[in-house]
Order: sequence, then structure tokens, then C-alpha cells
Amino acid sequence: MNTEQIVLASRPKGIPQLTDFRFEMIELPKIKTGEVLLKPLYFSVDPYMRGRMNDAKSYIHAFQIDKPIIGGALSTVLESKSDLFQPGDIVLGMIPWSENAVVSEKGLEKVDASQQPLSYYLSVLGMTGITAYIGLMHICKPLAGETVVVSGAAGAVGLVAGQIAKIQGCRVVGITGSDDKVKLLVKKFGFDEAINYKTTTYVNKAIATICNDGVDIYFDNVGGRISDEVISNLNVQSRVAVCGYISLYNNTDIELGPRLQPMLVAKNVMMQGFIVGNYKSEFPEAIQHLTQWVKEGKLKFNETIFQGFAQLPTAFLGLFSGENVGKMIVKV
Amino acid sequence: MNTEQIVLASRPKGIPQLTDFRFEMIELPKIKTGEVLLKPLYFSVDPYMRGRMNDAKSYIHAFQIDKPIIGGALSTVLESKSDLFQPGDIVLGMIPWSENAVVSEKGLEKVDASQQPLSYYLSVLGMTGITAYIGLMHICKPLAGETVVVSGAAGAVGLVAGQIAKIQGCRVVGITGSDDKVKLLVKKFGFDEAINYKTTTYVNKAIATICNDGVDIYFDNVGGRISDEVISNLNVQSRVAVCGYISLYNNTDIELGPRLQPMLVAKNVMMQGFIVGNYKSEFPEAIQHLTQWVKEGKLKFNETIFQGFAQLPTAFLGLFSGENVGKMIVKV
Repeated sequence: MNTEQIVLASRPKGIPQLTDFRFEMIELPKIKTGEVLLKPLYFSVDPYMRGRMNDAKSYIHAFQIDKPIIGGALSTVLESKSDLFQPGDIVLGMIPWSENAVVSEKGLEKVDASQQPLSYYLSVLGMTGITAYIGLMHICKPLAGETVVVSGAAGAVGLVAGQIAKIQGCRVVGITGSDDKVKLLVKKFGFDEAINYKTTTYVNKAIATICNDGVDIYFDNVGGRISDEVISNLNVQSRVAVCGYISLYNNTDIELGPRLQPMLVAKNVMMQGFIVGNYKSEFPEAIQHLTQWVKEGKLKFNETIFQGFAQLPTAFLGLFSGENVGKMIVKV
Repeated sequence: MNTEQIVLASRPKGIPQLTDFRFEMIELPKIKTGEVLLKPLYFSVDPYMRGRMNDAKSYIHAFQIDKPIIGGALSTVLESKSDLFQPGDIVLGMIPWSENAVVSEKGLEKVDASQQPLSYYLSVLGMTGITAYIGLMHICKPLAGETVVVSGAAGAVGLVAGQIAKIQGCRVVGITGSDDKVKLLVKKFGFDEAINYKTTTYVNKAIATICNDGVDIYFDNVGGRISDEVISNLNVQSRVAVCGYISLYNNTDIELGPRLQPMLVAKNVMMQGFIVGNYKSEFPEAIQHLTQWVKEGKLKFNETIFQGFAQLPTAFLGLFSGENVGKMIVKV
């Protein structure tokens, strides 16, 4: 059986280009015991995947040149030589960017497709939602009445983090990159205020004005200068969850910024970087609460869905130009 | 009654100079109800006082020009119009740099001078020891077998932090600024290894070699480039207590350094700046353990004592040229 896959043609220098990807036809191997043949339905495209395109040691292995990109996906099982899965099952797992794929049963997880829109298992009820939950609830420990700033607020994780903070009784301010997103955050997703950092000359002062009692919690998805501006407005005993740093992902050199230690000491700040995979014991609690909030209508979500396998590289590049509101997904 | 005091003559630009201080004779006011007349015995000189010399908002008010420097001291009560203190009592408190001082009873604390060398209440059993205890035990939460790096290791707080880590069963590596201090740390204070950062060309590599399983805990007293080198060797789930940043205290501009967010995320690092005054509920536990360890001989200490009131500015300047091993104290 022949299938089309997308491989990493070259390691991006700076902002990834379409030419860093290559489509190619391959012949699928026969499935062996413990394997399944999958037909992907939805692919997740995520900012962290940019890091895997560099040839650098990190918490996750680098993608290899001329090998397929690997990402989260929901797939139908077409054939199974696994005792765990039957043809017709819907499974969640990390698989190659390929129109069909033969993969090990290991790491796949069956999904109950009857409960929620299927794509939610890649987004608000999947890693995206769990990441927001862990970062806000377990790292930042919000108290009712506190002021929470979320950067990348209209992104997949930011959208959920901000709404969870609202559910906890906090005042929530989002930072985002367009006036349309500002409106969405406030009108659709219940943020108290939002700032368009692209049209705001002094983000620092804007935050100081909007958060006139200072910032108690900063849920950071972007890093870089925007984060400097938020950090300079932190309160004593504030907490910062560093979830991502999308503003730096495409840098080719280590970027310099103001040293943080003086601010951390002066304000007794706790800053915790995190990778959701290190908090697996908290997943059941996170999923339980997220599911409940979605059912109750307290937690809304948005997906930006690109249509067609061929759109995968384009959708991925769109993450860095801010084309998504909420989770970026490709429907095959 | 006339007395000599030391005032801030000018705000230091960069490294403080003796000319930033001025000695002057004043007439002491008569003591009023609720006040005491003190004769200081020991003054504490501490790096944090440099911050108070700037005209900047911080967690503690700036010193005022032409007003006396204020610092921690142990004093004898000469006269009392307070119900709390009798002449002859030894009291600990923040008082002006003055040969005699009339101060409010508020904030003074009676000290039992019979138990330990008196100066210990300014050092290992005072704020210094408590700071080390809170930073290591409550913020970094060491586990036996973990590797702990302490910068400013021969300084007042570093010396205690490193020894507490040893008491907890950790492997402890100190960073300091002379070969003599390296020897002292290892031979007298039981550090496993120590590095002279001034003679080590690649501190990063030296740490990587000595800490070949990586760094689990970093107790940071210095900030700046030394901290960059330690941070690049942190393990997954490591903890950083930012106690001070003496390498930056004399900077006139905000220093730039490599942005920390990528490292914090990749290694799931927790970084907490702290000011000991925010942890008052933990003081009794800290004092109990510190006292016990000193009595048992597990916690050794060192003081660098300058003799004479006139030496106060010189002793203070010595903090920034590394003249102290352990606590810098001026005996009046």
C-alpha cells in the first residue's frame, strides 16, 4: 500500500519555510503483531514542534532530516494486529505526518468519540487543556480576586488558561496580537480585558494601567519582550508559569534580555518552567475538571481547522504568524 | 549627650566609595516613653544594604541622603523608658549607624547572651542563618543524594546554606573567589568540592565536570554570569533559590543576560526569588534547627570582624571585594 508522508527536508534557520518540508510517496510496511494500520482524521500542530526541528538536545528528541514529522493525531484503526484495538476504533497518539501509518500499539489511547466533538481530544480535553490546567492550577495556585495575565491569550493553551482563571474567580487580562482577537477574548471568552501588543506602544504602561493592583499570576506562552513588560508589573509573592516562549522559538542565537534575578528577589517571585508530560499523575484530575467545565458551558473553546493533509506545513507556519484562534488543527 | 553617627553623604554610582559616607557629631534627643537609649556592640554589614543606597522603590525603603545608615545590630540598653527592656539588656534590632542611639522599643528583641557567642545572633542564629535555612529547606526542598551548588559560598549565607545541604545528605559544590576560600570550604566547612571562579576559565565546564550528574539545586547569592553557567547545568525538575545577586548590586544599568525561559521550560525548573522577611512563620523552626546544629557541632561558622565604629564603611565596602569569610561584622 502506497501513502504520502511529509518529511523534514531541512532544519529551519529562523522562521520555518514551506521548503523545509517535503512530500513523498512511500510504500507502507506490512503490519506486525502489536501494530495497527491507522487512517489519521485530525492532526494537531503545535508550537513546541518547532524545537524538535533544531538539532539540539532538549526534553524531546529532535526530528531527523528526511524522516517524517511526528505529531499528535486522532486516527481511525483500519487494521489491527493488536489485542488492544479493533478496526473502527478511534485512537489518540503521536504518529507520523502520513496519510496512512503503521505504528505500534504502544502510546495509543482509545477515545470515546460519542461524548464530545472528536477534535476536542486534541485540544481542550487533550494536551492543550491539560497543559493550561496544570500550569494555572498546580503551578500558579490562583486565589479568587487575584489578577492573572495570560500572554498568547488567544492561542490554544492561553484561551483555556484564561478561562480557568475566570472560573477560579480571578480578574483576567489577555495579551494577544490583533484587535479581532482582543474582541473575541473579551466578548466570547469572558476575559476582563485584553491588549493588542502590536498596536500598544508601551505594553508595560498598558499593563500597569489595566492591572492597577499589580499582577499576581503570569501565565507565559511567549517569552521575550512582552514577558519583560509583564514581569515588571508583578506583585510581591506572585507566580509565573512559563509554558512556552513562542517569540524565541525561531531565534538562531540565544537572545539577551534584562536579568530577572533582581525582580525575582525584590518581589519574592516564583517562576516555574514546565512540560506537561512531567505531571502525569495530575492528568486524571485535570481531565475530570476540564470535561465538567466544558459540559457546564463554563469553558468555551475555539479551533482553527485547516482542511486537507497537504495543509499541514502551512498550518504549522501559521502558528508563528498568529493565524489561529485557539487550537490549530488539520482535518485530513 | 553628643554622639557620632554615619550618614549617607551621596548615592553611590556603581561601586560605593568611602566618600559616599560622612561621620558627624549630633546631639541625641532625650528619650521618651516607649524608647530606649542604646550602646551598640556589634553591627551587621550586609550586601542588601547596597540596594537601600539607591533612590529606587524596592521591598525596603531607600536610605535618605544626610540621614544615618540603618542596619542590624546588637546593643546594650543604657537607659529605658520602655516596659519591655531594662538597662543592661542585650537587644537585637535595626538601628542607625551611631555610637549611641535613641530608638523606639518597637522592633527590638531581647537576646539571651549566655547561650552562644553574642555575635551569632547577627549571623548563624540570626537573619543570615535563617535566610540560608528558608532558601534551602523551604524553597529548594533538598533530597539526600542530590547535587547542590552554592554561589557566594564563603559568604555569610552561602556558608550556612552549603552546610545545611550537607546535613541533608546532599553533595555540595561551592563557588567562591579565592583559592584560600576554596580550601576553607572543603577542609573546614565540609563542602565536597569548590571552584575559584576567578581562576577558572570555563566555569560552565568545571561545573559540568564536577557535577557529572547535573545540578539539582542552585542556591544563588551572586546572579550574573556565574549563575548563567550554573543554570546551564541544571537537571530536570531542579530548583533555584535566588537569595541575592551581589554581582549586579553595583550596576548602574540593567544588565542583560541570556533569557532564562527556554532553560526553565526544557528542564522544568522552579526558580524562586525570596526575601526572608516574607517567611516569618517559618522562623521558629529555622532557629530551632540552626541552634541544634550549632550545639551538635554539625554547623560551623565564621565571622570576619572589623574592630571599631569608624570601620563600618570600610567593612561594608569589603563585602563587594570579597574580604569576608562568613559574616561581616563590626565590633564597636
